[in-house]
Amino acid sequence: MAGAIFGSLLTLSTFGESHGPAMGGILSGCPAGLTLDFEAINFELSRRKPGQSAIVTQRKEPDGVKFLSGIYEGVTTGTPIGFVVENANQKSGDYDHLKSVYRPSHADYTYEKKYGHRDHRGGGRASARETVSWVVAGAIAKQIIPKVKISAYVSAVGPHEYTGQIDELALKQVEQNVLRAPDLIWAKEMEEFIKSVRKEGDTVGGVISCHVDGVPLGWGSPVFEKLHASLGKAMLTINAVKGFEYGSGFQGAKMRGSAHNDLYRADGRTQTNYSGGIQGGISNGEPIFFRVAFKPVATLMQAQEVLDKDGQIKTQGGKGRHDPCVVPRAVPIVEAMTALVLADAYLMDRTTKI
Amino acid sequence: MAGAIFGSLLTLSTFGESHGPAMGGILSGCPAGLTLDFEAINFELSRRKPGQSAIVTQRKEPDGVKFLSGIYEGVTTGTPIGFVVENANQKSGDYDHLKSVYRPSHADYTYEKKYGHRDHRGGGRASARETVSWVVAGAIAKQIIPKVKISAYVSAVGPHEYTGQIDELALKQVEQNVLRAPDLIWAKEMEEFIKSVRKEGDTVGGVISCHVDGVPLGWGSPVFEKLHASLGKAMLTINAVKGFEYGSGFQGAKMRGSAHNDLYRADGRTQTNYSGGIQGGISNGEPIFFRVAFKPVATLMQAQEVLDKDGQIKTQGGKGRHDPCVVPRAVPIVEAMTALVLADAYLMDRTTKI
Amino acid sequence: MAGAIFGSLLTLSTFGESHGPAMGGILSGCPAGLTLDFEAINFELSRRKPGQSAIVTQRKEPDGVKFLSGIYEGVTTGTPIGFVVENANQKSGDYDHLKSVYRPSHADYTYEKKYGHRDHRGGGRASARETVSWVVAGAIAKQIIPKVKISAYVSAVGPHEYTGQIDELALKQVEQNVLRAPDLIWAKEMEEFIKSVRKEGDTVGGVISCHVDGVPLGWGSPVFEKLHASLGKAMLTINAVKGFEYGSGFQGAKMRGSAHNDLYRADGRTQTNYSGGIQGGISNGEPIFFRVAFKPVATLMQAQEVLDKDGQIKTQGGKGRHDPCVVPRAVPIVEAMTALVLADAYLMDRTTKI
Amino acid sequence: MAGAIFGSLLTLSTFGESHGPAMGGILSGCPAGLTLDFEAINFELSRRKPGQSAIVTQRKEPDGVKFLSGIYEGVTTGTPIGFVVENANQKSGDYDHLKSVYRPSHADYTYEKKYGHRDHRGGGRASARETVSWVVAGAIAKQIIPKVKISAYVSAVGPHEYTGQIDELALKQVEQNVLRAPDLIWAKEMEEFIKSVRKEGDTVGGVISCHVDGVPLGWGSPVFEKLHASLGKAMLTINAVKGFEYGSGFQGAKMRGSAHNDLYRADGRTQTNYSGGIQGGISNGEPIFFRVAFKPVATLMQAQEVLDKDGQIKTQGGKGRHDPCVVPRAVPIVEAMTALVLADAYLMDRTTKI
Repeated sequence: MAGAIFGSLLTLSTFGESHGPAMGGILSGCPAGLTLDFEAINFELSRRKPGQSAIVTQRKEPDGVKFLSGIYEGVTTGTPIGFVVENANQKSGDYDHLKSVYRPSHADYTYEKKYGHRDHRGGGRASARETVSWVVAGAIAKQIIPKVKISAYVSAVGPHEYTGQIDELALKQVEQNVLRAPDLIWAKEMEEFIKSVRKEGDTVGGVISCHVDGVPLGWGSPVFEKLHASLGKAMLTINAVKGFEYGSGFQGAKMRGSAHNDLYRADGRTQTNYSGGIQGGISNGEPIFFRVAFKPVATLMQAQEVLDKDGQIKTQGGKGRHDPCVVPRAVPIVEAMTALVLADAYLMDRTTKI
Repeated sequence: MAGAIFGSLLTLSTFGESHGPAMGGILSGCPAGLTLDFEAINFELSRRKPGQSAIVTQRKEPDGVKFLSGIYEGVTTGTPIGFVVENANQKSGDYDHLKSVYRPSHADYTYEKKYGHRDHRGGGRASARETVSWVVAGAIAKQIIPKVKISAYVSAVGPHEYTGQIDELALKQVEQNVLRAPDLIWAKEMEEFIKSVRKEGDTVGGVISCHVDGVPLGWGSPVFEKLHASLGKAMLTINAVKGFEYGSGFQGAKMRGSAHNDLYRADGRTQTNYSGGIQGGISNGEPIFFRVAFKPVATLMQAQEVLDKDGQIKTQGGKGRHDPCVVPRAVPIVEAMTALVLADAYLMDRTTKI
Repeated sequence: MAGAIFGSLLTLSTFGESHGPAMGGILSGCPAGLTLDFEAINFELSRRKPGQSAIVTQRKEPDGVKFLSGIYEGVTTGTPIGFVVENANQKSGDYDHLKSVYRPSHADYTYEKKYGHRDHRGGGRASARETVSWVVAGAIAKQIIPKVKISAYVSAVGPHEYTGQIDELALKQVEQNVLRAPDLIWAKEMEEFIKSVRKEGDTVGGVISCHVDGVPLGWGSPVFEKLHASLGKAMLTINAVKGFEYGSGFQGAKMRGSAHNDLYRADGRTQTNYSGGIQGGISNGEPIFFRVAFKPVATLMQAQEVLDKDGQIKTQGGKGRHDPCVVPRAVPIVEAMTALVLADAYLMDRTTKI
Repeated sequence: MAGAIFGSLLTLSTFGESHGPAMGGILSGCPAGLTLDFEAINFELSRRKPGQSAIVTQRKEPDGVKFLSGIYEGVTTGTPIGFVVENANQKSGDYDHLKSVYRPSHADYTYEKKYGHRDHRGGGRASARETVSWVVAGAIAKQIIPKVKISAYVSAVGPHEYTGQIDELALKQVEQNVLRAPDLIWAKEMEEFIKSVRKEGDTVGGVISCHVDGVPLGWGSPVFEKLHASLGKAMLTINAVKGFEYGSGFQGAKMRGSAHNDLYRADGRTQTNYSGGIQGGISNGEPIFFRVAFKPVATLMQAQEVLDKDGQIKTQGGKGRHDPCVVPRAVPIVEAMTALVLADAYLMDRTTKI
């Protein structure tokens, strides 16, 4: 497919440029008869929204989603769910300075050269504004699989890694701090760190971890739709992501088999979980967990070199309102994409046995 | 799709269990008029073959591929290329001890519970024997994009990471040592290390890096078929893979934007390449590179606990012939999957502009 | 796919119920760099619009399409083209009498039983209002393949078949009469016939023929995407269609091979065209033509029996504003779906040769 | 997709040229746990086989299918079912006279010009030999939906239409005569007619009707995967098919709505069945029926004009062994494709409700 459709049975098509009239999508394959919790959808949108704290961008985006179809009297009808989210704040003039230049480590240059024509305003289709549609769809996907609990959180900011325990208590703290970390003290430290980075006009990367409880044994497929491969692709689809690992991940590559194998208990559960809840591409009933690496945001608030259309290197100062660190706002996006993959795998699993 | 098809325009369907009569596949969408280099295909198969050295499994597999269609007088016809690779050495009896047990960190348990019925012999569909079909298809894919040079190599074995330069000379050494490392001395050390692991009846993981030259600007799609996301999914589809990162990867998450941004030169190329040759999901003409983490092989040559069908934990000694470290043999597999993704992206790019 | 996506490379996803807030769609895979002719899009929409003449429904639908993405400064960017068409006239109250009944030969009963829940207003997702999105997308598709001339026309109304010549002159007359027939006199007769049917509160079926010039040799695929099979599926997707035939069609089944074979001329063109411009699933450069059968509209303006939810047969009088004969308004829809199939085949053909 | 994959959840990929080493396919998405009836598969293959009577081609084809995967101890495992059918009788020399000529109304010319290179022997990929793989897959599909009874039969030969009753008794007679007609006397007449056509070195077309019992309410999708549209595409995929109609078909286009509407009975079933068992794209529980038009076979046993590569019109006598009328042998093929569509729709319907 030409890159506009995500999923196999639960499919999401999206459209939109950050400075066009609206973003939106069509979620198809959502089973009929689901009484939607619209507050839950709004909650996810509010988590993604810019301007929530000093460490994320101060842009204001009214993320009110408008559903156009597929829902009747609050219940899904089984037909495609169309929705739009308007882009209220279209100050295109803000972006005129970008019309003839290519910013480093942005999609400006590749889009322009691939397509010969692009919407330069705010990154156009390359903008992370796109993820608003994923969050809408993901919030519905979560409701298709209500027993599954998806908990993403910030586990590293720049060189600082969170090394504490991850238990129920820790996961509860995630929504209690602007960093979305599983520890209030570490969160505070990181908040200060990000502020210091921002003061320098700089940005910093980070890592989001995701912990999923409640996926039963059997989701995923043996070869070309392995559950972790679908999760990996979903994560690598998120803007700024540079890496994905699940279970033992890159660390597992350093281990011996005798230490890495997850020995069984008599009830079929495993004593350890280096497998990250997935064996042979299929969930085994243990918690699924994975880590996602985000590069530092490429848009800086300090002057840097850009390339203009005439092949001149110029220096351009930072403008606009941007995140000094993307990971706090990416937490609900990681969860949304996870939900889409898992709900799709759940529906597919329904067709497995005679 | 139900997990049997890989790719969008250049599609690979595969079938086969390790101890059934044959593996095989259908490569569809290969352009017509390509004069195939069959020796190149055989060379890739020979690279993947077991029994090449003391550090890989000593099983003998005759990997002679038989093409059944889509090629006439040595030239592709544009119709589906069907092929089979027979499984000559079907000693099913070797696997009777596995019929009623679930080995730790294998797909035994998840397959059995998901499908209610499985072919237990040699891992069945979960066996890495499957990759023989990918190597056939990947060898053809390489010929669709002859200017692209894909070079994978072993860059870590267990805790030992290769830290030397990667230049043309280094890449040339890869096929000159059984480890497929870019340095003969380090390769020798690692060979000894793997032998020592094998002596203990144990296994060890590792990392394969892949370096791709010659991809022009413009391959990949903006949102749901980002080039690195497709590469990531392809890599995570390979047996035993636990992680994928491209460009700066997880290391990039620790960096500042001011250091990470790849500044342009006047000719549009970049001074650094933390982007790993891909920006906004689209190749930018710089070399593409990525790293793939492999867990240690789960089948040990030492006794370990298994679960039997009656819910008893038993101790079972290792049997069969297995790789103590999978990475040397996985190098051509990484290249094959990379070639499939890139050839697909190339064909898709042909439809981009009016 | 779950039925919400049409096409392979040029894909259309749609959403919308006739009495929801809006219909709409996402056209993805449209090549970049196409300067859109918006008047041509509006012209197609105006052709589809109800209320154009006494022989079609008198409902007023403001078919103003709003493009939300994928177009910048009037030129396609290669990213998904999102669009909505609002449903201004949502008098849901008009449809309360349908809430608890199933009308004969409508989708009421099958939707309700399949999904357990439906939007009963105006047919919901089953309404031909859906086709407004196809016409938008088809009008763009036509512009992707500007040398292709698609001419559909009404060739039968009820038992009355048009038997005159189809030449350039005839095709020109199609837009000069409300029936969209290739002959003004026959059109006038049919108009009177339809009015007489309407007076009886009845409806009548008809046939649309489609003639396509300018498709070069080579579009279509050998086996599972034969060009005529894709066209057939597209036509059978249109509401009320009961049959499709191309070239000699059902008549050809009565012929001998010696009469039916299209003998070549020295220039590779054929002397006759029983093949309908397609041989072995691939266009051969001759005009493509096919016929599409439409059943009589199921909604009558006379009383008829309906089934209510309690299993009672009741008599219900006709209400609302409906077409006595659907074929005049279906002409642009046939053309739109034809354009989508052909533009997709054109893009696919670009990937055929090395 | 590039035309090598059929179906959404139950997918069939095929390969093969008539004079290559083998035909074959991969059936993926078949649910696990199905105990296969191999005799039923062989029975379908025997029905399709050439040489069964004087009115079909006298070629001998050993249609022994060899299953290579996806089945263990006679039961499906849920993994892809790979299979091959060897082409034993590869007398390529028989076809040398075709190497440089294009036969009228064959795919010779379109393949050659589209791909620039083709396997000319016996039609290559365009040969109806391809259908052997569909019959294998269709025979499995029938077993996925055992309550569905698919009965195809010859209902017209050339200008001669069968006009008798179609009841259980008639359907039983279909396998009792070489024509596969629902009436032994009419079958005998048609057999004589076909023999007379063959004596003249000519061929003749025909119609196959298909009657399907046991499809429950709810299979199919509202818009882009309407059940009849999928059936239509499947039928139009069969070699030599020129038209498809379901329910009232082209005849329905001549009717009034008041006569055509299928009024309900109190139990939700309908008094008539002009809808052909499908309303709004979704099965309604009534019998499904449709008709498929086949053109006369293009290969004649009499001399006719062909075009050679140098642009000369030449006269060439008929050679080889060919069907004077294809419909008797196409009956199991119609059934196989119907089974594939219905089993796919059945699996898809499993994902419909929450």
